[in-house]
Amino acid sequence: MKLIIVGGVAGGASAATRARRLSEDAEIIVFERGPDVSFANCGLPYYVGGEIAERSKLLVTTPQRLRARFRLDVRVNTSVESIDRAARRVRVREVTSGREYEEAYDRLILAPGAAPLRPPIPGVDLPNVFTLRNLADVDRIKARVDQGVRQAVVVGAGFIGLELVENFVKRGIETTVVELQNQVLPPFDAEMTTPIVEALHRRGVRVLLGESAEAFEDSPEGVTVKLKSSGRLTAQLVILGVGVRPESRLAADAGLEIGPRGGIRVNDRMRTSDPDIYAVGDAVEIKDAVTGDPAQIPLAGPANRQGRIAADNVFGRDVRYRGTQGTAIVGVFNLTAAMTGASEKSLRRGNRPYRKVYVHPAHHAGYYPGAEPMTLKIVFDPVSGKLLGAQAVGGAGVDKRIDVLAVAIQAGMTVFDLEEMELAYAPQFGSAKDPVNMAGFVAAGLLRGDHPQLDVETVLATAEPDRPYLLDVRTAQEFAAGCIPGAVNIPVEELRERLGELPRGRDIAAYCQVGQRGYVATRMLRQHGFPASNIGGGYQTYRLFHPHATTVTPSSR
Amino acid sequence: MKLIIVGGVAGGASAATRARRLSEDAEIIVFERGPDVSFANCGLPYYVGGEIAERSKLLVTTPQRLRARFRLDVRVNTSVESIDRAARRVRVREVTSGREYEEAYDRLILAPGAAPLRPPIPGVDLPNVFTLRNLADVDRIKARVDQGVRQAVVVGAGFIGLELVENFVKRGIETTVVELQNQVLPPFDAEMTTPIVEALHRRGVRVLLGESAEAFEDSPEGVTVKLKSSGRLTAQLVILGVGVRPESRLAADAGLEIGPRGGIRVNDRMRTSDPDIYAVGDAVEIKDAVTGDPAQIPLAGPANRQGRIAADNVFGRDVRYRGTQGTAIVGVFNLTAAMTGASEKSLRRGNRPYRKVYVHPAHHAGYYPGAEPMTLKIVFDPVSGKLLGAQAVGGAGVDKRIDVLAVAIQAGMTVFDLEEMELAYAPQFGSAKDPVNMAGFVAAGLLRGDHPQLDVETVLATAEPDRPYLLDVRTAQEFAAGCIPGAVNIPVEELRERLGELPRGRDIAAYCQVGQRGYVATRMLRQHGFPASNIGGGYQTYRLFHPHATTVTPSSR
Repeated sequence: MKLIIVGGVAGGASAATRARRLSEDAEIIVFERGPDVSFANCGLPYYVGGEIAERSKLLVTTPQRLRARFRLDVRVNTSVESIDRAARRVRVREVTSGREYEEAYDRLILAPGAAPLRPPIPGVDLPNVFTLRNLADVDRIKARVDQGVRQAVVVGAGFIGLELVENFVKRGIETTVVELQNQVLPPFDAEMTTPIVEALHRRGVRVLLGESAEAFEDSPEGVTVKLKSSGRLTAQLVILGVGVRPESRLAADAGLEIGPRGGIRVNDRMRTSDPDIYAVGDAVEIKDAVTGDPAQIPLAGPANRQGRIAADNVFGRDVRYRGTQGTAIVGVFNLTAAMTGASEKSLRRGNRPYRKVYVHPAHHAGYYPGAEPMTLKIVFDPVSGKLLGAQAVGGAGVDKRIDVLAVAIQAGMTVFDLEEMELAYAPQFGSAKDPVNMAGFVAAGLLRGDHPQLDVETVLATAEPDRPYLLDVRTAQEFAAGCIPGAVNIPVEELRERLGELPRGRDIAAYCQVGQRGYVATRMLRQHGFPASNIGGGYQTYRLFHPHATTVTPSSR
Repeated sequence: MKLIIVGGVAGGASAATRARRLSEDAEIIVFERGPDVSFANCGLPYYVGGEIAERSKLLVTTPQRLRARFRLDVRVNTSVESIDRAARRVRVREVTSGREYEEAYDRLILAPGAAPLRPPIPGVDLPNVFTLRNLADVDRIKARVDQGVRQAVVVGAGFIGLELVENFVKRGIETTVVELQNQVLPPFDAEMTTPIVEALHRRGVRVLLGESAEAFEDSPEGVTVKLKSSGRLTAQLVILGVGVRPESRLAADAGLEIGPRGGIRVNDRMRTSDPDIYAVGDAVEIKDAVTGDPAQIPLAGPANRQGRIAADNVFGRDVRYRGTQGTAIVGVFNLTAAMTGASEKSLRRGNRPYRKVYVHPAHHAGYYPGAEPMTLKIVFDPVSGKLLGAQAVGGAGVDKRIDVLAVAIQAGMTVFDLEEMELAYAPQFGSAKDPVNMAGFVAAGLLRGDHPQLDVETVLATAEPDRPYLLDVRTAQEFAAGCIPGAVNIPVEELRERLGELPRGRDIAAYCQVGQRGYVATRMLRQHGFPASNIGGGYQTYRLFHPHATTVTPSSR
């Protein structure tokens, strides 16, 4: 067996080492266009910021070690130019010498990755406009920063974009982020990104949403970024982080099937339309594990798994890839945002039915010092309660809850299973009722009919006179500090005695700070014959949707 | 409906508030013998140490709030003395006044908890010998510490015992822990507690294992603790943390069924042998969710869930308790130990077949600063691969992995599912191949036959000449710094060239530092016709079993 692997980073390196473990005899050649294999892609922004101090740390392994330990024939700085599928040969070019030659294969695994998009904007090729993909890129960016940069513009507020923003700020650079969409971190639901935007503001980052760069121009101070809104930004460093494009040209030129998003099409064994050719990683179209739809999700973990599975199949094993959930996480200053499975907006886009709940718990017992707040949102099937997705934003412990929920999605669990989860509790690690349990309680209460809930957006989108009576059951002080416009305040503790103040025959939307007292009030009111519901997640969820709402004088008590 | 609840802490308080949410009309009385309801049981040691500075933080809720918000009739300092099941009445006594009266019920929920054991040792009632259960206890202990304590002895190295040890050390107290078993944290497998013992030693704690207190005697310096070994310890403060006893006397006196471990017997609706009486929390015998065996597992999370389920059933809902997994966690200085599901020793005790693997990964990407090591052990069914239990010890991220594995156990997942888990990865949170994935790879490789493994205890228990040839595939430096006695060193990178040095026809047990290179070597050797296996978890697992092993001069080259 002669196996050729194109690309030596995440998926390619995993495929190569797995292949060797499966076969001592196989001839295994890895062609990597760049000078490095298996580098720490996800660490690059932290090398710019200095958090990762030594460049050598970014080299997860070296061609030498792959040769010594796995007897892999690793050829770096070597680009695969074309595939002759009929002859089962690839044509390769040594990048430095320009020498070209052919190499035959029995099986081929393509792991070329994805390249940062460089939109055809005037001035995109100016020397101070960068994209970030590999060590060569990071060397250039870091050199530029080390020379001294006062102002930076990051175009695109995705994961890598915001990681770079954080690291630029740590380097003392005045940073502006420009994002075409009306939110940062586009894979997330917009309201979940509100705390991230607030954190960026607190650290002095200028965040321009619904905005784009129209042109870059050389200027005495570096680059001028001309914005669509006709504004202008000055910077000595511009990063384009507007997404990636699967590197599928080689595959397409060879006549392999390509999906509509440009990814190489593979089956669940990671095999392309040519039975001798497999493809893995950021370059392939995968199946979304939750919706079953084809998708393009560039992530390191899935790339590694796919590499392993491709190698297994090359050596005759029947191993299938189950799809990608899209579990992803990003740290932005002291906040963490993480998600897994479907977002609300992706479900809406796909016209899939769902319900959602929000909880706003602390990451560990509130009585132990250092509890950090988080917002956790889950989306689930309105009939079966099957968990479809989860997002969280907050401080410590966000990663844990999203991992727990990622496993729940993998297992096909329902919100009723979340109620029963037995998670580790000591006061510095969690709560006897963990945030995940809390989300389960709220969601299961909704589906059982015990806890009717309204989404705050729906309530506010309903015009008078159809809008329900808004009942704020918090304390008078909380109410005075800010409420949903039009709400009337009766603290839950007084509610039983003040039922006579409530209108009869009108829907009531109760709410409190996070949803718990609103739930108690809702239970109470319904048992007293009022058609009441709770506004899910309470005032804190309202604030996610209306971050700039100011304190409103209550219309009446 | 008139519902009486005996006990107002975790399970009782949960039952009471759930009951109110289910019924506005019900008359609900909560009798609590102590002065407080729903206090932060698990926070008590940290109040002694000063980590939790304000006593008021320990009061999770108050009788006043339960009255106002939930219209509960909470009667503290009131002890339930007897149950007249035929008449459906309880006899209660007001602790302070001594006044007794009767109260009728339609349904009764018992949530009396468990009491610390006070073994009948001479001197156990001396004023400086304490147990810790409630706020009154913690007030006494803290007052004693505040007066000045030079030396403390903690009898029992369980969870609360070690939490107190840590907090005493933080208060500058010279602390000795005395444990009857040959390990600390008895629910864990012994080898997994090695790092905890080492951490205790590093902080100056004297750890006496296989030791017990035989008597306590008044002395001018406080108390003298006489040990079984005939040693003596001097202390001004002694804590007995040798376990708890379910408070089932009330139930037993009323003729309710009691299990062999002293717990009140309930069905999966938390109903006792009397259909009008339910019982929840530390006082009941539950079903072990993994083995199905009856068990006694006092934990706050399960108590809360049981309270909720009992209330549901009281109000006619068919809700079942699925059993307790025993997910538990403890912080000891900068280390964390956590477990879920079955331990190896419990499986062995039950004669249940299992296999196990160890991995020793970092809690996040090694290239990002601050990665902390952990040891993760999983036990699983040798045929199906179904996950039966997990334990971890290390620094940050231990809680996360045990929670993830707790969900996997709840879902009935196998080690093959662990391979596929898609967990959140950015370098400060995890790795592209998470520790949980790694454990899955190693376990699945074992079951598929790709990765034959030997347990280090088994290898070392095998006498020559049946013992396999021990092959250390680490570097010469690693080998020189310490190896398994009798091992021969050939680094994995040189192995293909030095196959001729290996014996033919003899089993080979390869090992490296953590298991990864040993696996590569095993794959290589087997394909070259050697009957090789890998020692699971490598030298680091060996060190868990042999913490005091010193560097051994290799027997040959």
